[in-house]
Amino acid sequence: MDTLNNNAPIGVFDSGVGGLTVAREIIRQLPNESIVYFGDTARVPYGSKSKDTIIRFSRQIVNFLKTKNVKAIVFACNTASAFALDTIERELDIPVIGVVKPGAITAIHSTKNKRIGIIGTEGTIKSEMYTSYIQSIDKDIEVVGKACPLFVPLVEEGMLDDEVTKEMATRYLKELQNENIDSLILGCTHYPLLRKMVGKIMGPDVCLVNPAYETAIGLRDMLSETGLSADEGAVPSYEFYVSDDPLKFKQFANTIMPTDIGIVKEVNIENY
Amino acid sequence: MDTLNNNAPIGVFDSGVGGLTVAREIIRQLPNESIVYFGDTARVPYGSKSKDTIIRFSRQIVNFLKTKNVKAIVFACNTASAFALDTIERELDIPVIGVVKPGAITAIHSTKNKRIGIIGTEGTIKSEMYTSYIQSIDKDIEVVGKACPLFVPLVEEGMLDDEVTKEMATRYLKELQNENIDSLILGCTHYPLLRKMVGKIMGPDVCLVNPAYETAIGLRDMLSETGLSADEGAVPSYEFYVSDDPLKFKQFANTIMPTDIGIVKEVNIENY
Repeated sequence: MDTLNNNAPIGVFDSGVGGLTVAREIIRQLPNESIVYFGDTARVPYGSKSKDTIIRFSRQIVNFLKTKNVKAIVFACNTASAFALDTIERELDIPVIGVVKPGAITAIHSTKNKRIGIIGTEGTIKSEMYTSYIQSIDKDIEVVGKACPLFVPLVEEGMLDDEVTKEMATRYLKELQNENIDSLILGCTHYPLLRKMVGKIMGPDVCLVNPAYETAIGLRDMLSETGLSADEGAVPSYEFYVSDDPLKFKQFANTIMPTDIGIVKEVNIENY
Repeated sequence: MDTLNNNAPIGVFDSGVGGLTVAREIIRQLPNESIVYFGDTARVPYGSKSKDTIIRFSRQIVNFLKTKNVKAIVFACNTASAFALDTIERELDIPVIGVVKPGAITAIHSTKNKRIGIIGTEGTIKSEMYTSYIQSIDKDIEVVGKACPLFVPLVEEGMLDDEVTKEMATRYLKELQNENIDSLILGCTHYPLLRKMVGKIMGPDVCLVNPAYETAIGLRDMLSETGLSADEGAVPSYEFYVSDDPLKFKQFANTIMPTDIGIVKEVNIENY
């Protein structure tokens, strides 16, 4: 085990600010780990774009993160996890983890009636990544997906507790309410910010699964298994990079992160 | 005047599908002109991104359009017109036109009480491009801007005649209703698709200005002044390029264009 290597940072990326809900969980659960975060704010959102485009974007970001000598990479974006992780994992010599598998495994453990719901972007739902992964583990589980394309813009507008958001949530979730699911995966990194509203509509009998939380646990296990966990006394550092204006990102980040995130740097990601 | 040149196509670009409302007007009003359209669907939307990023994206697109030997370029996107047109015009040896100036001039002619409203994306409104252009022509005109960030996602979801869209329109336009404006510029290429709803809320005394229509007229004048109008007998051709999945673009385009748009080709725009 290379001691330099195990204190190297973890690369975390997302299409924009949503992946900060994953970074926040990593900071909480793995307080000795350093993080290099990249948010692709110049090309956000990913949810409605094609598989080939998401693979190209993810490959550029991974190339950038590698210049920061990361020891592992977290795809903190459901669309990138669904579309690009398998392809890019084969090209890399460091471990990677996405948000899909940890969330799926928790839902499998949580469901009693073998009926799981999943909400996400159009790309995530259409990919049926959650469904095929869950059914590869237990083929008797039924998975019901529902795309909620307006949730991301509504969250980005800060309309977390608004009548319009409630009306859209009621419409999107109506289908799922008739499906007798007992677990619901919040399959987009923005959605934990709507957790309370979704929980109220679905009622107390449906368990909400937040992949951000589960991903941090999965990351801890992966680092431990590969001998890459940071030393217990290690003092972590956090670096933030974006592809568009750093100021706007910083303002949003500071509303959801535990402390001020410091300097955010802009990167021309198309050069990687 | 070079006869080869004057029958060359016009390059038209937008962040995505919105600019098709401009292409549609050009086809209607200038039936002999050929068009090469580019929609930057891999990086849509532009409205919330920074000036530097929009200039970089626009420059790549203009470089691509030049490989198609276009004789003139239409910035069929309000954000790109506001942020990038002036910079890129200085770098080019062919005439360019955006949607801001033609829309502004029509509003100046339309207003009687010298109070004009403008709705658009965050980028367009914050740039104050409409305001400064209008006041450079008539400094006595008051311009009141209002960003409507959810209009683009609502239109892209096809929710043109929906209660949620009506509720958001009512909120966004409330401020403008108290401003005693008599003309309202639809300052985003998606907004003409909400024309009826906006018109009903603002009432019959407010004249709605559609820059797509005015841009086609401005283009006709520009081509005529520079001796670049296509020959009267010229048979036009239309080519469509996008940076993401062509199929999705084609489906949307065929719902708003007069005829089937034919083959749509994908371009890796980051290479230009």
